[in-house]
Amino acid sequence: MVEELKRRVYDANLELVERGLVIYTWGNVSGITEDRKYMVIKPSGVPYEELRSEDLSVVEIESGKLIEGLLPSSDAPTHIELYKANDAIKGVVHTHSEYGVIFSQSGVAIPALGTTHADYFYGDIPCARALTEDEIKGEYEKNTGLVINEAIKDIDPLSIPGILVKNHGPFAWGDSPEKSVCNAVVLEKVAFMAFQTMVLNPRVERCPQFLLDKHYLRKHGANAYYGQKKE
Amino acid sequence: MVEELKRRVYDANLELVERGLVIYTWGNVSGITEDRKYMVIKPSGVPYEELRSEDLSVVEIESGKLIEGLLPSSDAPTHIELYKANDAIKGVVHTHSEYGVIFSQSGVAIPALGTTHADYFYGDIPCARALTEDEIKGEYEKNTGLVINEAIKDIDPLSIPGILVKNHGPFAWGDSPEKSVCNAVVLEKVAFMAFQTMVLNPRVERCPQFLLDKHYLRKHGANAYYGQKKE
Amino acid sequence: MVEELKRRVYDANLELVERGLVIYTWGNVSGITEDRKYMVIKPSGVPYEELRSEDLSVVEIESGKLIEGLLPSSDAPTHIELYKANDAIKGVVHTHSEYGVIFSQSGVAIPALGTTHADYFYGDIPCARALTEDEIKGEYEKNTGLVINEAIKDIDPLSIPGILVKNHGPFAWGDSPEKSVCNAVVLEKVAFMAFQTMVLNPRVERCPQFLLDKHYLRKHGANAYYGQKKE
Amino acid sequence: MVEELKRRVYDANLELVERGLVIYTWGNVSGITEDRKYMVIKPSGVPYEELRSEDLSVVEIESGKLIEGLLPSSDAPTHIELYKANDAIKGVVHTHSEYGVIFSQSGVAIPALGTTHADYFYGDIPCARALTEDEIKGEYEKNTGLVINEAIKDIDPLSIPGILVKNHGPFAWGDSPEKSVCNAVVLEKVAFMAFQTMVLNPRVERCPQFLLDKHYLRKHGANAYYGQKKE
Repeated sequence: MVEELKRRVYDANLELVERGLVIYTWGNVSGITEDRKYMVIKPSGVPYEELRSEDLSVVEIESGKLIEGLLPSSDAPTHIELYKANDAIKGVVHTHSEYGVIFSQSGVAIPALGTTHADYFYGDIPCARALTEDEIKGEYEKNTGLVINEAIKDIDPLSIPGILVKNHGPFAWGDSPEKSVCNAVVLEKVAFMAFQTMVLNPRVERCPQFLLDKHYLRKHGANAYYGQKKE
Repeated sequence: MVEELKRRVYDANLELVERGLVIYTWGNVSGITEDRKYMVIKPSGVPYEELRSEDLSVVEIESGKLIEGLLPSSDAPTHIELYKANDAIKGVVHTHSEYGVIFSQSGVAIPALGTTHADYFYGDIPCARALTEDEIKGEYEKNTGLVINEAIKDIDPLSIPGILVKNHGPFAWGDSPEKSVCNAVVLEKVAFMAFQTMVLNPRVERCPQFLLDKHYLRKHGANAYYGQKKE
Repeated sequence: MVEELKRRVYDANLELVERGLVIYTWGNVSGITEDRKYMVIKPSGVPYEELRSEDLSVVEIESGKLIEGLLPSSDAPTHIELYKANDAIKGVVHTHSEYGVIFSQSGVAIPALGTTHADYFYGDIPCARALTEDEIKGEYEKNTGLVINEAIKDIDPLSIPGILVKNHGPFAWGDSPEKSVCNAVVLEKVAFMAFQTMVLNPRVERCPQFLLDKHYLRKHGANAYYGQKKE
Repeated sequence: MVEELKRRVYDANLELVERGLVIYTWGNVSGITEDRKYMVIKPSGVPYEELRSEDLSVVEIESGKLIEGLLPSSDAPTHIELYKANDAIKGVVHTHSEYGVIFSQSGVAIPALGTTHADYFYGDIPCARALTEDEIKGEYEKNTGLVINEAIKDIDPLSIPGILVKNHGPFAWGDSPEKSVCNAVVLEKVAFMAFQTMVLNPRVERCPQFLLDKHYLRKHGANAYYGQKKE
């Protein structure tokens, strides 16, 4: 089962490059096993063009220990905290995608301004509070995960499947590694469009709640009617 | 005849991706049969890379019923209202192209600032009024079509072959599915250039009417002299 | 000789597409014969992907008559006026490239802000005055050429090989069709960089004259030392 | 050994084009031999598509004399001054990459606003002072190098491996030609993201020093823990 997950996480990592979200080693995708005991994640500092499926790191969630593969991404402790606190999350993505970083550096949430946003994110995409000096000097990557968990503790994480880390960049997640990548792509796209909307119309108002409801709920939940019927 | 239309609408849908207007399932093209009884449209939620010509949905205009193919795009009722109210329209496109969305989210018309715009759109590209809460909670997609028809009721629809739906994105149309795609491409391009012109010169004025006339009429209508002579 | 010029003008037209300056039929390149009697130009309204070398239009400069090939670009009379008034010009390009259009729509010259600009354009790239209503209703395309000539009458046309036509877009030229395309590419690039420089620093000042001199004159004229020695 | 360096510098030059940093002849990469006696650099005015490995210029550092290959880039004297004053520098890159030029034309440093910047540049990327008229009229390219050295004289050059030359464009360097190209790519990317961050939030503050420390030092120096263990 881990072999199959390694292949999927490998493909998901490469998709980050194909979609233009990542250059060099600036991103990583992970996935978790069904029993939530192990995480598969991109190894640290390996360029995407040299990455092989068998090099992916398998890490035990509870201990954080490397089980097989190369040394895991330095962001592995952040991923682990997200998995530990949110059972619905089955894939996590971190990138330095351009507009995700721009909002992160600005310390501003990505406002829900239209239906493109509402089709995937049921409200603003928040910017987590800055880490304190102590949190940065201590277990930095783990604390990054804790600060994200603090920011989303009252939200269903799958309803707003992404966040901005202050001065850093976006994280996104989903109920699979593939869906996490999709959410990272959409986060970047709606960030760009929100940015330019705010330039064009600095007094722009959020999309009304009933339009958010309509678009989010026609694609998600019990009464969804978008797409083909699932058997 | 429907087979030929399916092939053309299929190609037109793929062109949206090639031209960079659409990612994932964020767009659709339809075409109408000569007798205006049936519409061919992209099925709902099918990624473009998996789309096959035979999966396209054939829908009866009068009843809205699916005649053959997969479940139609959730936007099908919008397309139907455009066809019902405007006999000149033979193709309709909906996208979430970037600057089309940015103007839609801003609630601002795309002003006619130059000859690139005038070669295709004989005046500003309007932004339709926002749908009311009732219109959104009711037959949302049909009401979207009615609000577009309300906005263009005093315009020859082929002279300004596109519109912005508030908080949502652009629709474009034409006298064929192919021409509709072209108009969607041009709408995106002139939206981008209008946006940046307004950034560079916030007091910019519209292109004078006589220049709009010159460019629009040298390409369209009885005295057009652009292009090769048609046999 | 015209055959060779047709091939070169054909290649130069295709390069506009490869360099991203043109979509659909939004541009044209011409070249003039050594005796300055004939111009070869892209035919009107033919998409680049369907263009064949043998379809190019050969037009007599003096009479404006079509000698061979398809109907010439509707902009042919503009090209002719440029050739008639400026013996140094041996190639002309018109495009609707994005930032060229944005400055044209804004009615603002492209200021010489740095050495990239100075390597090709020895000063600001001017925006010609708007055509009057009479000039537009009359021989519009010819008058466009006359208005350009009026704007550059005191300039060596090869030292600033391009201009903006108000509300329309850029024209560029050079001592060959190939060099004209290069100048059109550079015009677009320096327009973009000037635009963003003005956004970043609205009080930015022009590049000092002695730096313009240094860069322009190390690449052009008797004391140029850039590049390999010409035999 | 020079043959091997020529091949590496050749590849590094081509990578500038692949990464979108250079069009036409607008850039150059050099590398220095281990004994710091010779520099290999792109020849002047040769388009990248025509460049051959054997055409690269080998220049003696002390005398500036051409030893083999075509005439060197006109920027060769700038590279030489950088090598002479900074023993740690083993590769130098100059480009006219877009946002590098935009900051150079604005005369503004690229502020360290986030961790993407801090992973490569340990502080703001400075803009050197403008050259005086005398410095420009004299040995311009050599003086450009001296002005850069003046600006970085109190900095470890590998800790902030790049700079902006006023009204001109960026230079970057590193402990190899390949690393120099990487630093030029990152400079362009962080310039773009800093630019847009400043548009979105004009009052944005620099990334706190302890976050800069964390990111720079987890990738560089004795306590680095990013990436795989080096044997």
